[in-house]
Amino acid sequence: MSFEKQLAGQGYTLAPLNLDAGRLLHATRSGNLVYTSGQVPVLDDRSIKGKVGSDLMIEEAQEAARLCTINCLRAVQSLAGSIDFIARIVKVFGMVNVAPGFDQTPSVIDACSDLLISVFGEAGKHARSAVGMTIPLNFAVEIEMIVELKG
Amino acid sequence: MSFEKQLAGQGYTLAPLNLDAGRLLHATRSGNLVYTSGQVPVLDDRSIKGKVGSDLMIEEAQEAARLCTINCLRAVQSLAGSIDFIARIVKVFGMVNVAPGFDQTPSVIDACSDLLISVFGEAGKHARSAVGMTIPLNFAVEIEMIVELKG
Amino acid sequence: MSFEKQLAGQGYTLAPLNLDAGRLLHATRSGNLVYTSGQVPVLDDRSIKGKVGSDLMIEEAQEAARLCTINCLRAVQSLAGSIDFIARIVKVFGMVNVAPGFDQTPSVIDACSDLLISVFGEAGKHARSAVGMTIPLNFAVEIEMIVELKG
Repeated sequence: MSFEKQLAGQGYTLAPLNLDAGRLLHATRSGNLVYTSGQVPVLDDRSIKGKVGSDLMIEEAQEAARLCTINCLRAVQSLAGSIDFIARIVKVFGMVNVAPGFDQTPSVIDACSDLLISVFGEAGKHARSAVGMTIPLNFAVEIEMIVELKG
Repeated sequence: MSFEKQLAGQGYTLAPLNLDAGRLLHATRSGNLVYTSGQVPVLDDRSIKGKVGSDLMIEEAQEAARLCTINCLRAVQSLAGSIDFIARIVKVFGMVNVAPGFDQTPSVIDACSDLLISVFGEAGKHARSAVGMTIPLNFAVEIEMIVELKG
Repeated sequence: MSFEKQLAGQGYTLAPLNLDAGRLLHATRSGNLVYTSGQVPVLDDRSIKGKVGSDLMIEEAQEAARLCTINCLRAVQSLAGSIDFIARIVKVFGMVNVAPGFDQTPSVIDACSDLLISVFGEAGKHARSAVGMTIPLNFAVEIEMIVELKG
């Protein structure tokens, strides 16, 4: 089954995303690698903001991580035409907007990893870091990826 | 017009930088990709330090981002001989030394993106993240880049 | 002398590490590049946790950086069979679990750089950033690397 169909089976479709965001691009390609920009949890009419561990529960932050993941895949689709051209997810850098004292950042980014594996199977298993910092505009999570395209 | 001349038109020249900084290199190359080390805003007799949002106004942080950008380009020049060998800017990771509550980090790193585009045009458009954390020695900004050289 | 023997001369051996950590992989490969996951200071029966600059002295954080480095090399060994297949260390991203006000993060990550150079010589010199943020589960340091393998 195609990755697009697997993603649809998870309840997601990838709305088109304009690759050119003005000063920056949502994704760039060098050789077979695609580098996405850091993607934030804004999708359709939803936007998830707040400090994780105080304003937000971990389940809300996990949902934010899923929206970031979808936006990363939209960026890849915009550049490559379809996520079906993905050979594998190489690297995920997950950044969580942490409140002081909150350090369960891997549990948040697990929602990204689980979604990738549910869609891409073994090709979705990636190297990863999942750390806490200050995310722009108080978004709960920001995720960037390196993805390898089929040759 | 060459990228060097475009940069001169922006009022900047790239002073030589010793690639070898002792324990680390200001840039390394693998294939056609150059990875710069995180560059801080120290140039000539200038050094921009402080927490953005408390010690520093956003305009000062933007100037810091420009100095970091120039140092990234110095690192690439040192490795490749000239920035004219740059095929494109692939990725920018912008790190801002934020005071608690400051989350306008994209506005700071926009100064880097604008400078890159003014020099490299379409080849200067990049994937990017712009986030807040603690920068060494209280420098206001730190930026690292991945740059593709002409084959 | 082989890199493995150089490492043994520094007092370290690389215990096997299961590449597959469930949701993620400790390292992935694309072309000749290996991307490690962020590695934390857990080795044998040791685990170094705490905020650097309050709970931990800099020397303890440096030891944490060494353990992270060993785990990065274990990840590469697990993927490639041996660290003797390493052509060079391309990039190090050093993340320190900082207490408020602690910004001597390069001094912490220097312990990683020094270990790499002692083992790999010139091939161990890398591009690097060394910054402060919130590390998962209160670990003192987290390090990820990009490593080039021999062709």
